[in-house]
Amino acid sequence: MKNNTEDRKPLILVTNDDGFSAGGLRKLIEVARKIGKVVVVAGEKSMSGQGHAITITTPLRIKTICKEPDYEEYVCNGTPVDCVKLGEQVILNGKPDLLVSGINHGSNASINVIYSGTMAAVLEACIDFIPAIGFSLLDYGHDADFSHVDSILESVIKKVLGEGLPTGVCLNVNIPAKSETPIKGVRVCRQAQARWVEEFDTRIDPRGGDYHWLTGKFENDDHDEETDQWALENNYVSIVPVQYDMTAYQAIDLVEKWKLELNHR
Amino acid sequence: MKNNTEDRKPLILVTNDDGFSAGGLRKLIEVARKIGKVVVVAGEKSMSGQGHAITITTPLRIKTICKEPDYEEYVCNGTPVDCVKLGEQVILNGKPDLLVSGINHGSNASINVIYSGTMAAVLEACIDFIPAIGFSLLDYGHDADFSHVDSILESVIKKVLGEGLPTGVCLNVNIPAKSETPIKGVRVCRQAQARWVEEFDTRIDPRGGDYHWLTGKFENDDHDEETDQWALENNYVSIVPVQYDMTAYQAIDLVEKWKLELNHR
Repeated sequence: MKNNTEDRKPLILVTNDDGFSAGGLRKLIEVARKIGKVVVVAGEKSMSGQGHAITITTPLRIKTICKEPDYEEYVCNGTPVDCVKLGEQVILNGKPDLLVSGINHGSNASINVIYSGTMAAVLEACIDFIPAIGFSLLDYGHDADFSHVDSILESVIKKVLGEGLPTGVCLNVNIPAKSETPIKGVRVCRQAQARWVEEFDTRIDPRGGDYHWLTGKFENDDHDEETDQWALENNYVSIVPVQYDMTAYQAIDLVEKWKLELNHR
Repeated sequence: MKNNTEDRKPLILVTNDDGFSAGGLRKLIEVARKIGKVVVVAGEKSMSGQGHAITITTPLRIKTICKEPDYEEYVCNGTPVDCVKLGEQVILNGKPDLLVSGINHGSNASINVIYSGTMAAVLEACIDFIPAIGFSLLDYGHDADFSHVDSILESVIKKVLGEGLPTGVCLNVNIPAKSETPIKGVRVCRQAQARWVEEFDTRIDPRGGDYHWLTGKFENDDHDEETDQWALENNYVSIVPVQYDMTAYQAIDLVEKWKLELNHR
């Protein structure tokens, strides 16, 4: 789908990491179609926990699911980052006005941003100078209830389309699970300094071999009101502006003072 | 291997993303063994471009390759991040004094940090409060020449073991490929704002179906002398202090000014 400049409708590329059949993707498509022309490129299967993985040792294939005047949908065998690359380079052959990813079934707040395929797609678009937003719901269920998210998605998407985002910055939006208490509002936050503490579930297979299932519990000691975790625990939508520049600027001086020298041999 | 506090030798966990047979891993092990007790946990196969992927839908298995008093080596079927998690939780059942990852066959400077399995392992250790360093050589060859890197690795590893690193900060060390010109020295840098521009190589299979190989070229418009790209192009080792807090603090005010509100229904 080409974006005609005379056409006022923005072109929105949609992807996710839970695969094309996920309820969260379907809700995001529904909202995006109210706002613009939509092209979906999603993975055939769930790619949760794939981080910023790319596919370099196997070829990528794309299947066309539907092609209507203002709506196209494709699935591929790649990761969320591959979906963005294929969307731009093979399907659109150009840049969309916006990339939205999600709605993830489960939180991408705090340290989850680093493991998240949803946010990897967002960062990939951001690297390519495309305004990009990731949406996640704090409900891991396959049948998660997305009925309360429409106005949140609409307002963030419209704002970013209208105002743009600074170069190198994208948004990580997390939404509390549906509950009896209405969401209190929106808070712009920093990423909480929490982490997953692994607990492998070690078992013995029928042939006597050990195997290990990765499990873990989320540990948060960072209860600052400025964090995304605080916002979500207090029933606010959290928005963290995210960047892909991972330089720890505050540590440059310290490492410089080490005066590391090479011992040429 | 337990780390006995009466024993002065530091315990070093070693991993990589090119798989256990890679020359870069073998060089890193050789240097690490001169400095401390070493436990290697590497992947059975290459995991290049796996980013911060974790394995959650298949069980992980570990094979013991060797077990000597000051040296143990294991391979597993997981990603680099899984290797760190298994190393800590299943093999060591505790934290090493240091995690080193690499030596990667190919650059992890600039935006490569975000796709890199090598650096994902480093970030994973950093999240768990383990001092961690990633090493990469600017030579993608399977038979890359690592004969000039010993003193660089030794000096960085010893410094980090001696001085530690600030919480939430790890190091991304990139080393120029071996050439006739000796390396000029070490520069502490920021991550250059470069990116990969994808160029899919689209082909037709014998059954008539399209498939796409991901290829791309590296584009750098950021020629600042403070960047890792500048350092490497000018034959310096680059060290970028890296953090996993991806918050774009400079954009928080801007997004707050949008005063996003929810339209409760």
